Amino acid sequence: MTQSIISGIRLASMCEGAAPYGLIENGAIAINDGRIAWSGALNDLPEPYAGWERTDFGRRLVTPALVDCHTHIVFGGNRAKEFEMRLEGASYEEVARAGGGIVSTVSATRAMSEDALVEDALKRLDALLAEGVATVEVKSGYGLTVEDELKMLRAARRLEALRPVRIKTSYLAAHAVPAEYRGKEDVYIDEVVLPGMEAAQAEGLADAVDGFCEGIAFSPEQMGRVFDKAKSLDLPVKLHAEQLSNLGGAKMAASYGAMSADHLEYLDEDGVAAMAAAGTVAVLLPGAFYTLRETQYPPLAALRKHRVRMAVATDCNPGSSPLASLLLTINMACTLFRMTPEEALAGATREGARALGLADEIGTIEPGKRAEIAIWDAEHPAELAYRIGFNPLHCRIAGDFA
Amino acid sequence: MTQSIISGIRLASMCEGAAPYGLIENGAIAINDGRIAWSGALNDLPEPYAGWERTDFGRRLVTPALVDCHTHIVFGGNRAKEFEMRLEGASYEEVARAGGGIVSTVSATRAMSEDALVEDALKRLDALLAEGVATVEVKSGYGLTVEDELKMLRAARRLEALRPVRIKTSYLAAHAVPAEYRGKEDVYIDEVVLPGMEAAQAEGLADAVDGFCEGIAFSPEQMGRVFDKAKSLDLPVKLHAEQLSNLGGAKMAASYGAMSADHLEYLDEDGVAAMAAAGTVAVLLPGAFYTLRETQYPPLAALRKHRVRMAVATDCNPGSSPLASLLLTINMACTLFRMTPEEALAGATREGARALGLADEIGTIEPGKRAEIAIWDAEHPAELAYRIGFNPLHCRIAGDFA
Ligand SMILES: [Zn+2]
Ligand SMILES: [Zn+2]
Repeated sequence: MTQSIISGIRLASMCEGAAPYGLIENGAIAINDGRIAWSGALNDLPEPYAGWERTDFGRRLVTPALVDCHTHIVFGGNRAKEFEMRLEGASYEEVARAGGGIVSTVSATRAMSEDALVEDALKRLDALLAEGVATVEVKSGYGLTVEDELKMLRAARRLEALRPVRIKTSYLAAHAVPAEYRGKEDVYIDEVVLPGMEAAQAEGLADAVDGFCEGIAFSPEQMGRVFDKAKSLDLPVKLHAEQLSNLGGAKMAASYGAMSADHLEYLDEDGVAAMAAAGTVAVLLPGAFYTLRETQYPPLAALRKHRVRMAVATDCNPGSSPLASLLLTINMACTLFRMTPEEALAGATREGARALGLADEIGTIEPGKRAEIAIWDAEHPAELAYRIGFNPLHCRIAGDFA
Repeated sequence: MTQSIISGIRLASMCEGAAPYGLIENGAIAINDGRIAWSGALNDLPEPYAGWERTDFGRRLVTPALVDCHTHIVFGGNRAKEFEMRLEGASYEEVARAGGGIVSTVSATRAMSEDALVEDALKRLDALLAEGVATVEVKSGYGLTVEDELKMLRAARRLEALRPVRIKTSYLAAHAVPAEYRGKEDVYIDEVVLPGMEAAQAEGLADAVDGFCEGIAFSPEQMGRVFDKAKSLDLPVKLHAEQLSNLGGAKMAASYGAMSADHLEYLDEDGVAAMAAAGTVAVLLPGAFYTLRETQYPPLAALRKHRVRMAVATDCNPGSSPLASLLLTINMACTLFRMTPEEALAGATREGARALGLADEIGTIEPGKRAEIAIWDAEHPAELAYRIGFNPLHCRIAGDFA
């Protein structure tokens, strides 16, 4: 359809400044060549659109297509054995001796071809798309050699050709220190992270640079070296920060104008203020919180007070969040973090888009943006947060992803 | 297929006394007219079956079809508005004044026709079946008049004709005291619960009798009166017990030889011992635990010590567990309750069957049982517990449900 009208809808545009969810009871959307030409109440449909072909959706709910702005869906193997060992009482040492932990994912990922990585990632991607997702961020970070990191990013890029989805890649060689560099984090940065970043940029494989700032990974100073390089290559940055402790990673990332800082359970108000000043989005990841049985909550009150934008994402990964449902993530954001349904749905649409630098292109339903929308067998947007393990998607409409 | 062999499978029979999960790496199942004629290692396939038509499933994992032994999938309306109000800070009083709570589900259910209840329940049933479930228990309990309780049970029975599923119904008029009987629980029992039970039994609508034993519902003494009537009608009993406090409900139910006692967060060791002696199954419901953000855990150690059988179920209902995924329930049983993947999977197969009095018919893959099996795109059964919000079902095979 080059020119068409979607009508008979409850329109939750997720635009700000109007009703909650931007809700219009009897709404319509005019789509011209994959872009939204007009949206609003059907009664206000301007004369020029009156003749366009119209499809009625029987009072169904319409929202922007969902955005999963933090995933690791490209990886090898799975960690079910380790999940089971821990529940059977094995210690972390026993799991490690049995080859478990991130090391096992790195081994499996290195051993797999790019084709095999693509095939495996498609299962997880298809699960996301079936829930109305149209944009997915995908990180490297299980290769940890220049070649294996590039292989992961190439696999991620290929997904876009195989499915109707927009993929944004993040170069995450600074995810963990591989066994061969243990205790030599700075050497690893010099020999792998920085040259790999240059290679990824040269091949057009990286849309952003990410890292894991934590006691068990990289310090803020080390991440600063990685971000300096990113800056020199004109690549935007983001950071896994304050997940297990407060190292000031989010504040450091904000000082680089990071698009997002992610996890944030241990973020303090100083870090919140720095993020607010920099416009850095807080990406909250309740799947990891749930899986790790974390008890420290991200500082919702401070984030709200400082008006930091909050996104939510699956963090889909084989270890701390083997979660392939963004709808379930929205429910978890409400049930576990006490976000409101409106905040959580905004987090998986408008703010997810913002976290990826796509705020001008997608994430709300308004003129000028791409016509990427989800149509649901539901009456009210709060239902998308309320139900658990239930997918009410009627269909997804997504334009070209050029 | 009247006579056929399923081969090329990793067979997790869930039979006890053998390997974990009853696992056989290169297994086969001989099916004769919807019943399992033989199962075991392909190498041991007896001569008489050698000529039967064989289908190879490419090394996929096979388990018994899943059993959801505690649901409330027949109901009217939804409670998304109330979910949202609470997250926006409304008090319970404000929610009640806005018409929220179980009262709203009772009103909506009473207002709906049997046809409309069937249509609405099918959405939830289809979500369960898509994950390899073949047997679903369905309770009444939102009608709370004789006619409306019967209407719910008739709707539940009709599901069996509309989908390839076995439905077991539970008469749950003793779920809540309706507004018109507030403070007159015993009058409600005399005027509604007992006559409704007789009517349900006369119409063949009830496979069991259930109740909610709690400070906000019925006392053990009151439930005893309900169970006496059930006994006189030859109906097996079960009970929602010790969910919010310890009233000794499970022990009371065990004294009636209850098939199951369900929830059980506040169960003490005395109650555990009584359940063990009576062979009453403990049905654990992590979806309600999750939704209510409960912090009291069911007494796993005591249940294991006394060898009480443990089932897991969705408790799918519009208030405390709007959860329509039994796979997610299995994950929650592990992640939240620390069940092992083997316990949780047994809870959704073998022990779920036992909780419904179907231990001789379904729940494991062994000769004589019905050929109701699930075939998964997975290598190891622990994967079914490990992943979150991901459905790896390849297909379900279910015989006739006569
Ligand atoms: Zn991550
Ligand atoms: Zn229940």
